[in-house]
Amino acid sequence: MVAPTLDFWLEFASTYSYLAAMRIRALADAASVNVRFRPFLLGPILAAQGWTTSPFNLYPAKGRNMWRDVERICAGLKLPLRRPDPFPQNSLLAARLALVGLADSWGEDFCCAVYRAEFGDGKRIDDPQTMRAILSDLKVEAEASLAAAQSGPIKDKLRAQTEEAQKLGIFGAPSFTTADGELFWGNDRLESALAWAKRAA
Amino acid sequence: MVAPTLDFWLEFASTYSYLAAMRIRALADAASVNVRFRPFLLGPILAAQGWTTSPFNLYPAKGRNMWRDVERICAGLKLPLRRPDPFPQNSLLAARLALVGLADSWGEDFCCAVYRAEFGDGKRIDDPQTMRAILSDLKVEAEASLAAAQSGPIKDKLRAQTEEAQKLGIFGAPSFTTADGELFWGNDRLESALAWAKRAA
Repeated sequence: MVAPTLDFWLEFASTYSYLAAMRIRALADAASVNVRFRPFLLGPILAAQGWTTSPFNLYPAKGRNMWRDVERICAGLKLPLRRPDPFPQNSLLAARLALVGLADSWGEDFCCAVYRAEFGDGKRIDDPQTMRAILSDLKVEAEASLAAAQSGPIKDKLRAQTEEAQKLGIFGAPSFTTADGELFWGNDRLESALAWAKRAA
Repeated sequence: MVAPTLDFWLEFASTYSYLAAMRIRALADAASVNVRFRPFLLGPILAAQGWTTSPFNLYPAKGRNMWRDVERICAGLKLPLRRPDPFPQNSLLAARLALVGLADSWGEDFCCAVYRAEFGDGKRIDDPQTMRAILSDLKVEAEASLAAAQSGPIKDKLRAQTEEAQKLGIFGAPSFTTADGELFWGNDRLESALAWAKRAA
């Protein structure tokens, strides 16, 4: 039997990706599903459909509801919530660093730490100082990792991963994809996606 | 103690409103929450933000995911699913008739029957014949109800209800609002909305 695997497509600027990142490990372990963290950039995908910023900024009623919804969910999960300024944050540096870490052993911890800094503490994730503090907490050599994040292969990998997301039909974050081609969109679908991955394996 | 009440804002053209309508009675009864069915038109609200048709048509990747998502949910709930053509359906006549029925005793049954005809059987809900068949099944006098649906007071009521929805910050369907001012968006939030209404009462 093939071990069930689920791809977790995350965008560091996304509030609901924060919720999914905080929940996915315990749920995946309980379901015995392997999860692959796949950071990508939602910006180019939204830009291709004519949006220049987050739909939560373009459509104020939708934005107000999102923040209140996330606030209620965080209260229920006992997760901290503090809005970063500006919103959305530029997630390019964090996404590139995540790819460096995912090729090593510290990628998932790094992803979760970025979300905690951004939405738990309201920090700027485009600030190299925020990244240095996270890497240092993870006992990772910060300057070497920051240099690797700006290397050609990592830039190419993030671009390729974003293109793959778009080809899979991904239009929002978080999203989850299974080996048999199912796409699930949103933190609300995490449980269904895990159950599907398990059944399909 | 005040009996807990939840307002259920439904748009007859909306697939996720279909799912919520099929689920809400049993869940509300189990939670001992009174539900008020509040049909409204999402079209004018979307038009005010520059959308001329459903976002599921404007954004094809979002639309493909919605149909697959609804298909999976219907399979899980053992609900039939057949796409009406065109999508979205013009929901004006059904919404007006629903207001006639909700002022009488047959409103909720009518709402559920419209959704079953539209998304279970793929029927056109802008066709008076579809409405006549539903009214006849409910033992309601069809011609008098159709005439009432085109009366000034009912037209005004639907307009007022749509304006109220917009003032409440509603931007999609289904939505749920509580007496203490919370707004919940989407079939996925039905359980949370009922729990909130119950706690707040």
